Amino acid sequence: MTVKALILGMGAMGSGIAKMILEKEGIEITGVYASRASKHGKDLGEVLELGRQIGIRVSNDIDEVLGKEADIVLQATTSFTKEAFPQIEKALKAGKNVISIAEEMSYPAVANPELAERINELALENGVTVLGTGINPGFVLDSLIIMLTGSCINVTKIKAARINDLSPFGATVMKTQGVGTTVEQFNEGLKNGSIVGHIGFPESITLIADALGWKLDEIKETREPIISKTYRETSHVKVEPGMVAGCKHIGYGIKNGEAVITLEHPQQIHPGLEGVETGDYIWIEGTPNISMCIKPEIPGGIGTIATAVNMIPHVVDAAPGLTSMKDLPIPRAILGDIQKLVNRR
Amino acid sequence: MTVKALILGMGAMGSGIAKMILEKEGIEITGVYASRASKHGKDLGEVLELGRQIGIRVSNDIDEVLGKEADIVLQATTSFTKEAFPQIEKALKAGKNVISIAEEMSYPAVANPELAERINELALENGVTVLGTGINPGFVLDSLIIMLTGSCINVTKIKAARINDLSPFGATVMKTQGVGTTVEQFNEGLKNGSIVGHIGFPESITLIADALGWKLDEIKETREPIISKTYRETSHVKVEPGMVAGCKHIGYGIKNGEAVITLEHPQQIHPGLEGVETGDYIWIEGTPNISMCIKPEIPGGIGTIATAVNMIPHVVDAAPGLTSMKDLPIPRAILGDIQKLVNRR
Repeated sequence: MTVKALILGMGAMGSGIAKMILEKEGIEITGVYASRASKHGKDLGEVLELGRQIGIRVSNDIDEVLGKEADIVLQATTSFTKEAFPQIEKALKAGKNVISIAEEMSYPAVANPELAERINELALENGVTVLGTGINPGFVLDSLIIMLTGSCINVTKIKAARINDLSPFGATVMKTQGVGTTVEQFNEGLKNGSIVGHIGFPESITLIADALGWKLDEIKETREPIISKTYRETSHVKVEPGMVAGCKHIGYGIKNGEAVITLEHPQQIHPGLEGVETGDYIWIEGTPNISMCIKPEIPGGIGTIATAVNMIPHVVDAAPGLTSMKDLPIPRAILGDIQKLVNRR
Repeated sequence: MTVKALILGMGAMGSGIAKMILEKEGIEITGVYASRASKHGKDLGEVLELGRQIGIRVSNDIDEVLGKEADIVLQATTSFTKEAFPQIEKALKAGKNVISIAEEMSYPAVANPELAERINELALENGVTVLGTGINPGFVLDSLIIMLTGSCINVTKIKAARINDLSPFGATVMKTQGVGTTVEQFNEGLKNGSIVGHIGFPESITLIADALGWKLDEIKETREPIISKTYRETSHVKVEPGMVAGCKHIGYGIKNGEAVITLEHPQQIHPGLEGVETGDYIWIEGTPNISMCIKPEIPGGIGTIATAVNMIPHVVDAAPGLTSMKDLPIPRAILGDIQKLVNRR
């Protein structure tokens, strides 16, 4: 039987998830929710600019969408558990499994322990499973690190960096990363919460620590302006030398006064102009030491879309409850018929 | 309750597994089998040359060892399912979960479909789980590849290479890889089966294909002598220029006449003498392309010991039957109390 999916959110990620599913065998989209009234009632093919009709009307009525038959709900509407919760609650009460790309949902107990407990209860009551995933948090700076430690007899310290290029992103990302601000504006933005850097370090760090059995004393984060030495420009922003090209955000997992987990995510436009190579890097200090690189980095948008869709069979087949990337089988690309990968036990 | 482990085999791998377990919290060794009569009756501490007593007598009576209480049996006695089967059968009938580092056991249905079916039946009958793992097959050239594809929307081709240095290994490895032979002797050795190269390509390739949902038409392997241009020497072997320094073994997974999976494992002594850098490399062609490297390579011995021990909680908690690395949660180092990682559901 075809796997049926509902998609919540028609931004860049929700649209990408829809396009990916449309290309896969053995899975169909049975409903799509978009908050914007301008998309309501339009065919999915029109909203995705595919030049063809899909036969699914996009709706801004969440209850109508969640009333459709489905094995899985893919949520791409927010970064935060608090904002994700009302939709997740409705989806669970409608007996649907949920995959959310909300960053905090990758390990929601970190920022919202009570909501996480409530999600777990609702999932158990309704016999369905909830997973948060994405490229980061969800994959590069947590699951992949956990995986690599699997070949270690012992681990004493973990350091990883995801060095990317924000140039392709739009105005919102520029604002939340402080690109194009002065140093003063950047520091002010950090204070008033308009500049946030990366969302997900506490989640990734706790996921790693819990997987390995480390008890951390504290998680710290630092955010610093990446002050440009060169002129950098995108279609959304201009950065003069001395201005801010991005945000160097670091998360630390601390144990006995030492950072045993250090995750760096300096996000800026055109890092290559100052000789910075993009890439994903993982260094494990232990027996043995492991030094991994992926160059260039796994692209964030594609990676988030892919991890979300690729986890569908694992989530549909998982034991009920709130789960996490560390508790499910190894992620993988879905290249054949999804129906054959799902047992629906 | 402490996790209890039996170890079958006291060669380099079995000994390493025992030492790793002795360093971990929440797990104890309750019995050890070694085939050699010379080790029979000795304390494990003496056999491991620890300079202290452990209080466990090594035995060459497999039935006596498998009669001890245990959650898991770690088997490190052979590379082949056929040879591994009698011990696995006894372990399963004794109600024990099994982790084997026999290369063929990483996906035993490939070389021995009937034995694999029999193992699955025995595991189901006795409510226990069987896993084959190790660094390769088991981790670098299969599980890690599968994992990386998890961030891909699509994959068209996979190529990977594990370039290592055989210099630390003993006489047996030199013989099975053809190190120190003439080209004629190497080709003769391939014919008569004394030179085998790597064991596990068909298993790794099938594991990847099954995980992704690719139907392969054929698996091919090639083995070529690595002819040395320089003088190379270890304590076990001398290689003059023109002689064979190792075996370049390649496995191909073929679909519609094209190699969609290519795994290379050139194994030689002192590759650095000819400018060859050791490392693990994975290249995925798809959306996106991914290019990963681990330099130097994850060491084989340590990696095999670690993956075997680190999978204990996953195997103890898995559903009964014959399982594989693609079906269990992401591997990870065990740094805390193993008891807390095991649910024994």
